[in-house]
Amino acid sequence: MHGAPCESVGVARAEAQPNANGNENMKTAAIIGGGVIGGGWAARFLLNGWNVRVFDPDPEAERKITDVLDNARRSLPGLGNVALPAEGALTFHPTIAEAVAGASWVQESVPERLDLKQKVYGELQQHVARGAVIGSSTSGYKPSQLQEGFDNAAQIVVAHPFNPVYLMPLVEVVTTDANTPEVIDKAKAIIAEIGMYPLHLKKEIDAHVADRFLEAVWREALWLVKDGIATTEEIDNAIRYGFGIRWAQMGLFETYRVAGGEAGMKHFLAQFGPCLTWPWTKLMDVPEYNDELVDLIAGQSDAQSGKYSIRELERIRDDNLVGMMRALGNTNWGAGALQNTHDKAREGAMGLASTMQDVADLSQPVLTLNRTVPLDWTDYNGHMTESRYLDAFAQSTDRMMAIIGCDADYIASGGSFFTAETHIRHIDEVHAGHPIQVRTRVIMAEGKKMHLWHEMYEGERLLATGEHMLLHVDLKTRRSAPPAPHLAENLAKFAEAHAGLPTPDGLGRAIGAPR
Amino acid sequence: MHGAPCESVGVARAEAQPNANGNENMKTAAIIGGGVIGGGWAARFLLNGWNVRVFDPDPEAERKITDVLDNARRSLPGLGNVALPAEGALTFHPTIAEAVAGASWVQESVPERLDLKQKVYGELQQHVARGAVIGSSTSGYKPSQLQEGFDNAAQIVVAHPFNPVYLMPLVEVVTTDANTPEVIDKAKAIIAEIGMYPLHLKKEIDAHVADRFLEAVWREALWLVKDGIATTEEIDNAIRYGFGIRWAQMGLFETYRVAGGEAGMKHFLAQFGPCLTWPWTKLMDVPEYNDELVDLIAGQSDAQSGKYSIRELERIRDDNLVGMMRALGNTNWGAGALQNTHDKAREGAMGLASTMQDVADLSQPVLTLNRTVPLDWTDYNGHMTESRYLDAFAQSTDRMMAIIGCDADYIASGGSFFTAETHIRHIDEVHAGHPIQVRTRVIMAEGKKMHLWHEMYEGERLLATGEHMLLHVDLKTRRSAPPAPHLAENLAKFAEAHAGLPTPDGLGRAIGAPR
Repeated sequence: MHGAPCESVGVARAEAQPNANGNENMKTAAIIGGGVIGGGWAARFLLNGWNVRVFDPDPEAERKITDVLDNARRSLPGLGNVALPAEGALTFHPTIAEAVAGASWVQESVPERLDLKQKVYGELQQHVARGAVIGSSTSGYKPSQLQEGFDNAAQIVVAHPFNPVYLMPLVEVVTTDANTPEVIDKAKAIIAEIGMYPLHLKKEIDAHVADRFLEAVWREALWLVKDGIATTEEIDNAIRYGFGIRWAQMGLFETYRVAGGEAGMKHFLAQFGPCLTWPWTKLMDVPEYNDELVDLIAGQSDAQSGKYSIRELERIRDDNLVGMMRALGNTNWGAGALQNTHDKAREGAMGLASTMQDVADLSQPVLTLNRTVPLDWTDYNGHMTESRYLDAFAQSTDRMMAIIGCDADYIASGGSFFTAETHIRHIDEVHAGHPIQVRTRVIMAEGKKMHLWHEMYEGERLLATGEHMLLHVDLKTRRSAPPAPHLAENLAKFAEAHAGLPTPDGLGRAIGAPR
Repeated sequence: MHGAPCESVGVARAEAQPNANGNENMKTAAIIGGGVIGGGWAARFLLNGWNVRVFDPDPEAERKITDVLDNARRSLPGLGNVALPAEGALTFHPTIAEAVAGASWVQESVPERLDLKQKVYGELQQHVARGAVIGSSTSGYKPSQLQEGFDNAAQIVVAHPFNPVYLMPLVEVVTTDANTPEVIDKAKAIIAEIGMYPLHLKKEIDAHVADRFLEAVWREALWLVKDGIATTEEIDNAIRYGFGIRWAQMGLFETYRVAGGEAGMKHFLAQFGPCLTWPWTKLMDVPEYNDELVDLIAGQSDAQSGKYSIRELERIRDDNLVGMMRALGNTNWGAGALQNTHDKAREGAMGLASTMQDVADLSQPVLTLNRTVPLDWTDYNGHMTESRYLDAFAQSTDRMMAIIGCDADYIASGGSFFTAETHIRHIDEVHAGHPIQVRTRVIMAEGKKMHLWHEMYEGERLLATGEHMLLHVDLKTRRSAPPAPHLAENLAKFAEAHAGLPTPDGLGRAIGAPR
């Protein structure tokens, strides 16, 4: 990553708002055990304005937590649309006693050994404030096992997070009758305050909820690899091109509710229930499929999703899938990379040029975009949203650059065009699902300057114009510099050929100038 | 959805490119059995330029497929960044014989009964071209079961898709020794041509791959609900706020590879392996955990992901997670809705006003954005990408609108401001992870017009300016109309107070005008 986290932290600090809570004690977390999980907790608290005090006897602990923090500072602050508060202070301490001073939250993330965890709690309870919450990151132990034998068992809860802890919202909160309502409420409030989701289980159970699923899938995956049915990569693809991306937005039951259609959850269960006795489950212990179980599940599903019709849920699902897959397209990963490959294979057939040789008639505006308005480009009223006009024009500029020779290889060699100024005029509206095309003219190309004019159409209907002044830059110095000769030559060809076209309406206009 | 699919289809048809393949026979698919799955296949083929011929004795078949098509036309065409070819023709036929005329692909999606499927194949093979592929959507049967007893077994394969078929890329292709390499290659090529991912299993197995996972998770979920550990909604949340969103981009093994850290996949397996004997797995049949299994899995994982370091994989993962969660933020769903709630709770503390009363000093520019540049706002070189400047300015405009009273309620009542023109000047660069703030001035407010000036800063460093002319519109007529009196009054207060500020540098400038 370019950019200095220290600098940006400095700025954030200088502009810090006072803590809403004011009370410094409310805002200190002690992290017992670093590593990937403890480091993730440290980052969550720190970036949400808490002071974080770490105890970990590992001499590598500071480096490991710094590594996690680097990742967290890079990704978490921009996740939301509102800046985070100023970072708290991160300190390392040689003893548990010193680490927990002033802490209202203690997070234990030591290795999964009950004796070790209990030893830590024994030492903790000698030093920590009686009102502080002790959360355990354990993925397997029940809270009753952790609490056993302790005087102040009430303050010990399971708070099981998911990696990367600085980004994943889920925290499984598991408690027992020994925990007071005050402790439970405080635990849930603090978890929510640092931007996470406290899932409070109704009863304690080995491995909580999520890890039971992970364990079930893991077992199945081991069989599939061992039996040579599919490789690890193929299994990962089976997940991420299919149910993984469905589950990311709706989970299991709501996904099936949609699949069941208007006939409802009971109908779905009636179809799926018999599968429980299919051959591949014969070795497994399964719950009895009876009316009671059906009523329980269908009733809960109604309470969860009954406010939406299946048609509504289908469209919500599709909006989410399109948005997520297009987000993966931006990183060229998973289902998004698949789509990019598919697009690339089709662009020639859709009239899009990649090089000068592909341009049939230099004298005409160049087709630089030929696409459909995607669902994630629209606002609450279903119209293409303002910034996506510039997104489309920027894609057109990229294609125009590639055509004249400013392609990925050229950019890797150290030159590119940067946009200096943009003027967009919105002429007419367009909705998701409608086809749009952008045609591009070179108005002027002189030295470092490239002056482009984009027109966006749906069919014959003009939707918007974009006037753009770009400067060629040296990517090392970040200063303007002349383009390579072959780029200048190609640009000049377009500028000369396009000079024969009539002057576009609106060229060179200022905002608010009379038409 | 607003907009007429017929219209847009009409436009697409009028501008259709000739089929790359030319041969009409290459481009006809027969769909045997409609419903959600058959309809999804029909939509996939149709929207990718194939003619689709449907056979389904259900009198409701045409309506059901039309419903699926409505959803598909709404979401699929914009998924990629290149327009789809012109739609093919959709026809319904009273017999299998008629439906398969000219088809190079036949997709069978009849109910999951082997006798019924075999009856369909028997009729199919009397009429379909010998070189056509017959794909079965079966989620449970092995291809050898489907092929049994047929003369031309070679043309029958399993092609198991996932709902919604028009969006989900995964197709499990399962074959036997009876299938020729030509049939297998043709099947995979056609699946790829319609934008899907053919996962060709190495061996046939009951329920293929993905459904074995779904079945394992389903069993576990039934236990959890039955035993009262969590409700269906809580289980869905456990999935979509945690591993679901991880799996959407990396699946199971690559996710664990990252979790294992630099020590590698073998180290991870050594940690996780013992879990196979933990108490909650005692009822399950599990593979023996030995060196052979470890070598197999670690070796495949190296082949899959070994080209990236763990640090690289962590950052790729985080880029993906941020992009997907922010996509879900746009639809206010799942993990994105969680983040939006968290943002909303913090905006006051970060100095962002929601109403006139929140604005401390009317005479100064208004803080309308206070955020960090997120990972998904940057381009390949790590700088904030062009269109996101307008995204940020548009968010500032939305906040300014809300402050003067043009909030969600007002918009729901039928009035809003639309942007007519925008002029952006890029002054300096900014990177992901850096804090940005936008301050906004009202330059002029007269009648229906609102003229705004946004300045974007990182600390004291000016990054960009945005000059925007907006018009108040009646959302019913889509024509400009005066705003409600309280909006006009609030706007006038700002315009008057801001008139005392010095004229901004660059106001009213046209593109390319001398500075």
